[in-house]
Amino acid sequence: MTDKKLIGVDLGGTTCKFAILTTDGEIQQKWAIDTNILDEGSHIVPDIIASINDHLALYNMQPADFVGIGMGTPGSVDIKEGTVAGAYNLNWKAKQPVKRDIEKGTGIPFFVDNDVNCAAVGERWMGAGDNVPNMVLVALGTGIGGGIFMDNKLLHGAAGSAGEIGHVCVDPNGYLCTCGNHGCLETVASATGVVHVARDMAEEYAGDSKLKQTLDDGDEISSKMVFDLAKDGDPLALSVVDRVSFYLGFALANLGNTLNPEYIVIGGGVSAAGDFLLTRVQKYFEKYTFSNVRATTKVVLATLGNTAGVVGAARLALD
Amino acid sequence: MTDKKLIGVDLGGTTCKFAILTTDGEIQQKWAIDTNILDEGSHIVPDIIASINDHLALYNMQPADFVGIGMGTPGSVDIKEGTVAGAYNLNWKAKQPVKRDIEKGTGIPFFVDNDVNCAAVGERWMGAGDNVPNMVLVALGTGIGGGIFMDNKLLHGAAGSAGEIGHVCVDPNGYLCTCGNHGCLETVASATGVVHVARDMAEEYAGDSKLKQTLDDGDEISSKMVFDLAKDGDPLALSVVDRVSFYLGFALANLGNTLNPEYIVIGGGVSAAGDFLLTRVQKYFEKYTFSNVRATTKVVLATLGNTAGVVGAARLALD
Repeated sequence: MTDKKLIGVDLGGTTCKFAILTTDGEIQQKWAIDTNILDEGSHIVPDIIASINDHLALYNMQPADFVGIGMGTPGSVDIKEGTVAGAYNLNWKAKQPVKRDIEKGTGIPFFVDNDVNCAAVGERWMGAGDNVPNMVLVALGTGIGGGIFMDNKLLHGAAGSAGEIGHVCVDPNGYLCTCGNHGCLETVASATGVVHVARDMAEEYAGDSKLKQTLDDGDEISSKMVFDLAKDGDPLALSVVDRVSFYLGFALANLGNTLNPEYIVIGGGVSAAGDFLLTRVQKYFEKYTFSNVRATTKVVLATLGNTAGVVGAARLALD
Repeated sequence: MTDKKLIGVDLGGTTCKFAILTTDGEIQQKWAIDTNILDEGSHIVPDIIASINDHLALYNMQPADFVGIGMGTPGSVDIKEGTVAGAYNLNWKAKQPVKRDIEKGTGIPFFVDNDVNCAAVGERWMGAGDNVPNMVLVALGTGIGGGIFMDNKLLHGAAGSAGEIGHVCVDPNGYLCTCGNHGCLETVASATGVVHVARDMAEEYAGDSKLKQTLDDGDEISSKMVFDLAKDGDPLALSVVDRVSFYLGFALANLGNTLNPEYIVIGGGVSAAGDFLLTRVQKYFEKYTFSNVRATTKVVLATLGNTAGVVGAARLALD
């Protein structure tokens, strides 16, 4: 390997995280800036360039000290062109030539992919993925995203939509999704989905339950609260977690039956529920996979937390 | 390209098809032999070797005239080792070193993959797949198999089960499958699945229907008969086709949402129902895909019929 370093950038709607890594994946420096989405997001790229250049000066480093910069971003990414379109939480309406501008502004080769794909790269490289050839990351956040590695390559598909596991339909008669369809996995197993399932099940629940009482009092609930109450034995919360786990296990089983990866890694905020969620998902995963997949595809938890994105982004520069 | 030729072998439980092709995919010679599965299938490989050598002598050709032999086979294939295990319809109980034996017997380099993967290679190369980077073949026969290309590579997964689309669950409370699970796509959309759906729906059907009458008379029906009656306007048969199309469209939509290939190609015997089936499947595919996949992933019919296997097998030798 080279002595040169990598820069990872994880661009989000509220903050933009940076890291300098060795080519072995060790983080040597980390910092973050606020994402300024004003004026149609026109400050974002200049802010990224300035922040990188400032830190290079601070650490006495030159562009030639780096293999490249990799960035994960929301929106629809053209990885060859190095452009980003339709990133609504960045206020980017027009297509953004991020590669052209950041290479020009820093003098360092630049690579870009979407944020969930970067998290998948990160988990595979330094986290739960163990550098296996075939791995799927399913990121359970406000929505649900996915990144798929097969034969050591990240899949993009015909138009960049490979890995959109959040829009796999798990119930043809289910809740309306932001995509316009009904019953997408995201409507029942994202953080907002868990809350939706809880509200619905509470309406038909008659027994004693703190979750039910909280909802009846008109208080807000969160997905974390549902899992915490379930861990404490709240019967309604346990039923909600069971239903969410069924949908997740069912969707991941079909992913396994289709792709037979070594690992399906569950990440994102909802995965903070840990083994409590994992064991329940595994039960349904095993129920709906056929024997060879059940024996060779494992469902595991992500281990990098919210550094997966910046680590995976940096890794893009090594391909 | 080279002037050398390819040999394709499509090994099935009743016949074994052979073809000699140019490296452009043009079939120059075709023949077939019966598959002799007696004595634990121990005659199969020697028969294949003898048949190839006989035909080479007949056509005055030498081993050096060929790039290689490719073969598609039932069972579980180790493509690197060149071995086949668990091919029950060939009576192969122990693992078969087909590559070792056929290379030794013919003096020609040999490559092997499973039969559905070979059909996928064939359709992509010379059929409906148009050499796109990302393509899925779903073969609707007695069972349902699948082959997946992403980024120009056939996927195998951790243990060779990538592409087992027949065991994607489409109804958690559905029919028992040969794999032990319930509601696999194969239980409702293979040739046997269509008949099962027809029998079930007939029981609850009260109106006038030739399909209903045939079943009430205790006569055997086939999937082809169901489609033919539906084309003639039989109301029960139309309902059966609609239900089968829903399950297929639903499963293919989720495949599209997961992989976003340029094409999903429907092949196998059931696909002989043609546009009548295709348009109904497309309707449900469009219903359950999200917009970007709906716009960029197309569901089409296979065009090579039962030569896809031998053509695709031959193509293996070019990789």
